[in-house]
Amino acid sequence: MATDRENAVFEAAIKLGALYHQFVGTPISRATAEKVEAAIESAVSLQPYVTSIKVRLDKSLMNENPFGYSELTGAMYDVVIETKFGEAKCRAGLKFENGYPMMRILD
Amino acid sequence: MATDRENAVFEAAIKLGALYHQFVGTPISRATAEKVEAAIESAVSLQPYVTSIKVRLDKSLMNENPFGYSELTGAMYDVVIETKFGEAKCRAGLKFENGYPMMRILD
Amino acid sequence: MATDRENAVFEAAIKLGALYHQFVGTPISRATAEKVEAAIESAVSLQPYVTSIKVRLDKSLMNENPFGYSELTGAMYDVVIETKFGEAKCRAGLKFENGYPMMRILD
Amino acid sequence: MATDRENAVFEAAIKLGALYHQFVGTPISRATAEKVEAAIESAVSLQPYVTSIKVRLDKSLMNENPFGYSELTGAMYDVVIETKFGEAKCRAGLKFENGYPMMRILD
Repeated sequence: MATDRENAVFEAAIKLGALYHQFVGTPISRATAEKVEAAIESAVSLQPYVTSIKVRLDKSLMNENPFGYSELTGAMYDVVIETKFGEAKCRAGLKFENGYPMMRILD
Repeated sequence: MATDRENAVFEAAIKLGALYHQFVGTPISRATAEKVEAAIESAVSLQPYVTSIKVRLDKSLMNENPFGYSELTGAMYDVVIETKFGEAKCRAGLKFENGYPMMRILD
Repeated sequence: MATDRENAVFEAAIKLGALYHQFVGTPISRATAEKVEAAIESAVSLQPYVTSIKVRLDKSLMNENPFGYSELTGAMYDVVIETKFGEAKCRAGLKFENGYPMMRILD
Repeated sequence: MATDRENAVFEAAIKLGALYHQFVGTPISRATAEKVEAAIESAVSLQPYVTSIKVRLDKSLMNENPFGYSELTGAMYDVVIETKFGEAKCRAGLKFENGYPMMRILD
């Protein structure tokens, strides 16, 4: 039997993996980034056991292609999620480090 | 050599195929549908040759799963897009018909 | 500091969330299901801390739309993944239950 | 009313837009690239009006991240698709050019 803490960790990680792969590739620009952030936050906040979700997409990486926009990449994500399962909580994050979109248990 | 009209048609269809597969699976509910619509419209409007994009997601199909939300499916989409290439234009749509997310040239 | 067991759980869940949202919507049929299973397994097996991944897609749900194929939905997935982090392991699964694609820690 | 040629063009473009956004972000390596190519080809070949689909993913761009794999990006795609609608045909392609995944009508 998994503990509440393990389940809180499990649920946080599901959402990080999901949001990463659902939205990577979305056309984006500095002007539209907030709408995409809002859509991702609204999607994740519907999922079970989520108590908080914050998504920031790094506008400094939204360099324009020849048609004047960019695509959401793993490098742009800065996400912090909190989950609660029974009495246990988990805070976890997604952030680009050393060329990799690292997902980590924060506490 | 493709004509301007063929290119306008081509560009409209790319966006319909793209938005369909980019966003299917996104967690959604009647309360968050408008944020997802806005994000899809903002993404498509960045892409080349798009002059207009309207995305409506059918809330009547957003039935709640055991955790109280739904997932964006092909059946929910109602999209009309307009493109312009050179002097030529295309209006095309995506709408569920007879169990299939039909994409069509409208004019 | 997270324990090895928590990290093993975390890593398993990331992959389940990721594969679900990466591949939902893929055109599929009974004839092509095995190629999609193989691609999903090959993708997941590359990710860190994965020691085993088994993906079965339920062909009985691959009912033909008017054009003779289907789309990969959450209901079709039957996945078991094993991860190892330090000395700790996790086995977790994704399976449709009561209208929901449940992801669970199996042991 | 759209002509058969316009519909053949339209159908080719839908598939290019779709495959791009469905599979971008998939974990991939030189060793697994062929399985992903096969899955994409099998998915596209199911869709209406497709008579031929060839997908090549550029292994030279599959540089290893710190965990030893890569992610499918727009730069890796080299796709040629053929469609037929009524008596008309279209051949179209997706290939990275000048920092952009260009989709074009080829003839």
